[in-house]
Amino acid sequence: MTIALGVLGCGTVGQGTVLLAHRRAEKIQHLTGFRPYVKRILVRDLEKTRSPEIDRSKLTNQAYDILDDPEIQVIVETIGGIEPARTYILEALRRGKHVVTANKDLIALYGTEILKVANDVGVEVLYEAAVGGAIPLVGPLQENLTANEVTDLKGIINGTTNFILTQMSETGAEFADALAEAQALGYAEADPSSDIDGLDAARKLTILASIAFHARVELADVQVEGIRHITARDVQYARELGCVVKLLASGTDRNGRLSLRVRPTLIPLAHPLAHVSNSYNALFVRGDAAGDLMFFGRGAGSMPTASAVVGDIISLLRNIRLGVAGSPENRLYLQKRVVPDEMLYQHYVRFSVSDKPGVFARIAQLFGDAGISMETVLQKRVEQGQAEIVVVTHSIPAHRMDELCDALAQVQQVQKVACVMPLEALSE
Amino acid sequence: MTIALGVLGCGTVGQGTVLLAHRRAEKIQHLTGFRPYVKRILVRDLEKTRSPEIDRSKLTNQAYDILDDPEIQVIVETIGGIEPARTYILEALRRGKHVVTANKDLIALYGTEILKVANDVGVEVLYEAAVGGAIPLVGPLQENLTANEVTDLKGIINGTTNFILTQMSETGAEFADALAEAQALGYAEADPSSDIDGLDAARKLTILASIAFHARVELADVQVEGIRHITARDVQYARELGCVVKLLASGTDRNGRLSLRVRPTLIPLAHPLAHVSNSYNALFVRGDAAGDLMFFGRGAGSMPTASAVVGDIISLLRNIRLGVAGSPENRLYLQKRVVPDEMLYQHYVRFSVSDKPGVFARIAQLFGDAGISMETVLQKRVEQGQAEIVVVTHSIPAHRMDELCDALAQVQQVQKVACVMPLEALSE
Repeated sequence: MTIALGVLGCGTVGQGTVLLAHRRAEKIQHLTGFRPYVKRILVRDLEKTRSPEIDRSKLTNQAYDILDDPEIQVIVETIGGIEPARTYILEALRRGKHVVTANKDLIALYGTEILKVANDVGVEVLYEAAVGGAIPLVGPLQENLTANEVTDLKGIINGTTNFILTQMSETGAEFADALAEAQALGYAEADPSSDIDGLDAARKLTILASIAFHARVELADVQVEGIRHITARDVQYARELGCVVKLLASGTDRNGRLSLRVRPTLIPLAHPLAHVSNSYNALFVRGDAAGDLMFFGRGAGSMPTASAVVGDIISLLRNIRLGVAGSPENRLYLQKRVVPDEMLYQHYVRFSVSDKPGVFARIAQLFGDAGISMETVLQKRVEQGQAEIVVVTHSIPAHRMDELCDALAQVQQVQKVACVMPLEALSE
Repeated sequence: MTIALGVLGCGTVGQGTVLLAHRRAEKIQHLTGFRPYVKRILVRDLEKTRSPEIDRSKLTNQAYDILDDPEIQVIVETIGGIEPARTYILEALRRGKHVVTANKDLIALYGTEILKVANDVGVEVLYEAAVGGAIPLVGPLQENLTANEVTDLKGIINGTTNFILTQMSETGAEFADALAEAQALGYAEADPSSDIDGLDAARKLTILASIAFHARVELADVQVEGIRHITARDVQYARELGCVVKLLASGTDRNGRLSLRVRPTLIPLAHPLAHVSNSYNALFVRGDAAGDLMFFGRGAGSMPTASAVVGDIISLLRNIRLGVAGSPENRLYLQKRVVPDEMLYQHYVRFSVSDKPGVFARIAQLFGDAGISMETVLQKRVEQGQAEIVVVTHSIPAHRMDELCDALAQVQQVQKVACVMPLEALSE
């Protein structure tokens, strides 16, 4: 039996999905009883040059050619962004169609609304591809790991920043040059702000944390800091400390108190996340029964993302065959409080001071007054009357580090507190 | 609504399962509609001292107290080994009970029979815990990654050998000493042969390869080589080559031609599997759409394995609620040929020769005659008139390396071809 799919969008992911669904049609028929075929594809520009494998007769620039087609039971949304994707998905759901989407922005911001409509109508919304590209994350967190209380999520879930930081680490490049290279290679957008300012990672964290902690968290719950201010020297100092710098998205659950952050972090080389380089993504999960787990793979790209989209299509078709697609579920059934990060971290802090006698004693005094021990004073680099100091503290709560930085900034001889990063602890 | 479980076995995994199912009862009720309770537990010795959390009134030493109890719908088998586990599982299935098992030996050897009986009766057999402990492997391969043709599986799936090899690498210990330490710490059995000779890994590979390649493979299809002959010097030489030695289980599918091997292998430090240390397990998967993926975590232990068992129980209860538990499936629907490993690998070979003039020329001649180039001649260590030679070859098929070793062994001055290992290539 065939089943008609309507694909919204024919960019990188849309095209990959059309090709992969076609290539795997026989296998999918065997596994699910349905042979999928793409009936229509929504595009903005009918005339644009496309892969010869895309059948042009299927293209339309009218969304309602697809949404109003009663034969199409499954909508695959690959447009991305909020509108018009949100409207199309809601319209599809209200017409009783199942939806598979790769849209992280939409699920992060409107997931509650979309899942509620789907539940009310009795159809399914699947979004494995919205986080981590090809890496199965939604599935394992929603299925295999549910016997756990997940206490920690730590993810490198933005490929653009990971590529930039890897380049900075391997070639000694400054941020701006590494960004330019990422743009030249297509790893970064012309306007890279949503990646490099951490927003993309924060959206994905919102999705993952909601699933892992069984409680809806919102984007506004995530404290976000990007990587624009990271310099080649920070990366070099990190290396001297036996660490790499990564943009880490982390969520913790301490007895129902959730903390969610995206920020540049020093990861020790012995940590499994330290070796996740370039455009790869990884999610580290700690469960109270499972212990430490890590999932690693390609977080973006045409076929890797299509792998997740078509995987969802296969699950959906199996559920349709069994008559259970869209069965009501309420996995986000707990209410949890989001609180500021209360964990203790060692902190890396780099700042510049006037190179004058007594300045370091004054700084050391400030640390002492704040009750914060220095574990390492890494470097003193003097240039034009300025000394650069890097300190690694003992473990302290983030807010005490913030207070210390405020105090440091008050000192007349301190030019600038240039960079503060937590240092990720190794597993016990 | 409550649902009664019968647990067979109360060792490490059985006990963990009982505790975790109890601890998560409320969550499971929310997610599935059923509150699980362990009604009976089969033990050999009723008098043995056990955790105070195990309710002694539930213990029985009569399997049929459980198998014949009509209230018990779900059997959790944690006995391990072939008999009596096989008989109990088959009897449970024939009585219409669903089965969750952590038994790799049984699934590897009798999986076909067991799954056929389950399909015929219309009940479910779940075995996520049989491979990789807490790491979700069966789930992702069976669900999320099905849009892929999986071409490569590479796994570190035996914690005992990984602990021994990690010790040898970190402390320079010889195999026998590292094994003794593993035994002292409880990572190795008194009779460690099934682990160190590679059989345990081969059984798990049989299970993983069957799922990933959608074709039933048998234990006899796996070429197995253990780690008894690996010396501290091999581990040291590997390190000089920028590699670590791991017992690698690998399965490849090249257009329907499968090759399955378990053998000690040199893994370059830049490979994601190189950093999987001690008792951790990991599976590297390459799919034609997803690209390279890795799954990492604890491969054994009470709570990690219970995490997978209880995860399966949750999936099963959800399926029971939806009325689809035991729906017929035939995922291993393809017939594929198992062939000797045809891949090209660089090879590491270590052998001793009499330290006499002209011997190395003779050896080099043999390599040349076999058309095998030496990429590196790593070491010459002379002791009591013997020289030890380590050669890393260019990429060649394994069978040509075997032929060369046979030829080397014929040379009068060659004392012993002591160790041959392939060198795992990095991803493109």
